[in-house]
Amino acid sequence: MKRNFKLVLEYDGAGYHGWQRQHGVLTVQEVLESRLSVMVGQPVTVRASGRTDAGVHALGQVVSFNAATRLQPEDFLRGLNALLPPDIVVLQAEEMPHAFHARYSATGKLYEYHILNRPVPSALERRRSWHVKEPLNDEVIEACLKIACGVHDFAAFMAAGSTVKSTVRELKGARHRRPDHDHLVFSFEADGFLRHMVRNLVGTLVEAGKGKRTAEEFKAVLDGRDRRKAGVTAPAHGLYLVRVFYDDRQPRKMHGGDNQ
Amino acid sequence: MKRNFKLVLEYDGAGYHGWQRQHGVLTVQEVLESRLSVMVGQPVTVRASGRTDAGVHALGQVVSFNAATRLQPEDFLRGLNALLPPDIVVLQAEEMPHAFHARYSATGKLYEYHILNRPVPSALERRRSWHVKEPLNDEVIEACLKIACGVHDFAAFMAAGSTVKSTVRELKGARHRRPDHDHLVFSFEADGFLRHMVRNLVGTLVEAGKGKRTAEEFKAVLDGRDRRKAGVTAPAHGLYLVRVFYDDRQPRKMHGGDNQ
Repeated sequence: MKRNFKLVLEYDGAGYHGWQRQHGVLTVQEVLESRLSVMVGQPVTVRASGRTDAGVHALGQVVSFNAATRLQPEDFLRGLNALLPPDIVVLQAEEMPHAFHARYSATGKLYEYHILNRPVPSALERRRSWHVKEPLNDEVIEACLKIACGVHDFAAFMAAGSTVKSTVRELKGARHRRPDHDHLVFSFEADGFLRHMVRNLVGTLVEAGKGKRTAEEFKAVLDGRDRRKAGVTAPAHGLYLVRVFYDDRQPRKMHGGDNQ
Repeated sequence: MKRNFKLVLEYDGAGYHGWQRQHGVLTVQEVLESRLSVMVGQPVTVRASGRTDAGVHALGQVVSFNAATRLQPEDFLRGLNALLPPDIVVLQAEEMPHAFHARYSATGKLYEYHILNRPVPSALERRRSWHVKEPLNDEVIEACLKIACGVHDFAAFMAAGSTVKSTVRELKGARHRRPDHDHLVFSFEADGFLRHMVRNLVGTLVEAGKGKRTAEEFKAVLDGRDRRKAGVTAPAHGLYLVRVFYDDRQPRKMHGGDNQ
């Protein structure tokens, strides 16, 4: 009788070619599955809430897996943290009803994007934030974020070559804050994200913050649905998958194509 | 005619065997001197405010050096940041009077020590903070810090085998804060620090926070001046040299033996 487990993971994206198992390169999925298989004594396949690209960090990635085992969630928490390399950590483990699926049960996600905004780079944050030398205008960024919020066709911010049924998503929250003078943190909450959507939004917002685009021009990019009109893709190492939301009452299928 | 320059450095201690040049291992001093020598076209020797041990980070290490050059401080800032590896960054560069010496002109230093205080470790902070699983009692720690403040003989917190003229130092500030529930940050400001003084203080304070020592027992350790009575040496990777102070009006010689 197989049981269904949920894990919440933190990982440092710097050492991996992203989440998804790929031939010839080291990925988070492969490392996690190999350790889980050792613990359970049989091959285990894990499903994540979504893929993360090479270099992207996770503070709250969620995965689920089935296993015929007598091990308890706390055994997975303790055992995996002893077996995993220190750049992958299990934060929580729990047993779930059979219907739970890390991806299909997800109802939304929260991403953060960290920018170091000062003339000189940082040694300690070199793999943790995007270094933007030029001063950024917070008012213009704020105006753009207000425009981005809500239900829109985000095709302009989807990676070229992606194929999904629909490019409409609901951006429930799009905020920015300055924890101190030199740092700017974006947060984006949505029911689902298109491939590279956060990084493409951030790249375009930074151009607006530098004075290269007005809020009106940002709106025109969004409305135009043309990837070539949007800004650069912000680098992966500033992006964090912070949280995956689940609606315990009624799991809904999440939009696909999610790959940050 | 030689000119005198001051640099303020940030570095990630994880990749180096500390500050000071040593045969056969990579150190921050060696890397900085090799790049400076390339820029100046002749061998350059730099003096730091003090050594940092392997794994210790710097947010504001100060070094000085003499060079017969037409290069301006801004050339060093830009040029070194282009030549240095990304885990060493020059934050500031300026020309100083000949009397300025990064170590002997220093009048004080500020160190911080970062603790991750939660049951599970962190992937992203694994080389940035000491992971302490057990809850720590902030009141006991606060009481110990009050005892440590002021002018004392800190021999109990000096690394075994160190030799210095005097083990008396003035701890001008010793504080702790919780930026959030899971983090605890100590800050220590003094006219000078004995070898491993901060890490030995933190190791002992953490034992007090766990309930293994009372504030009265902490005072007895300080008064006893016996290294064997103090706690463990906290790991290097939680320690940050944040700032070096200089009194522009009247440079005083700093206490020696400083090696964290």
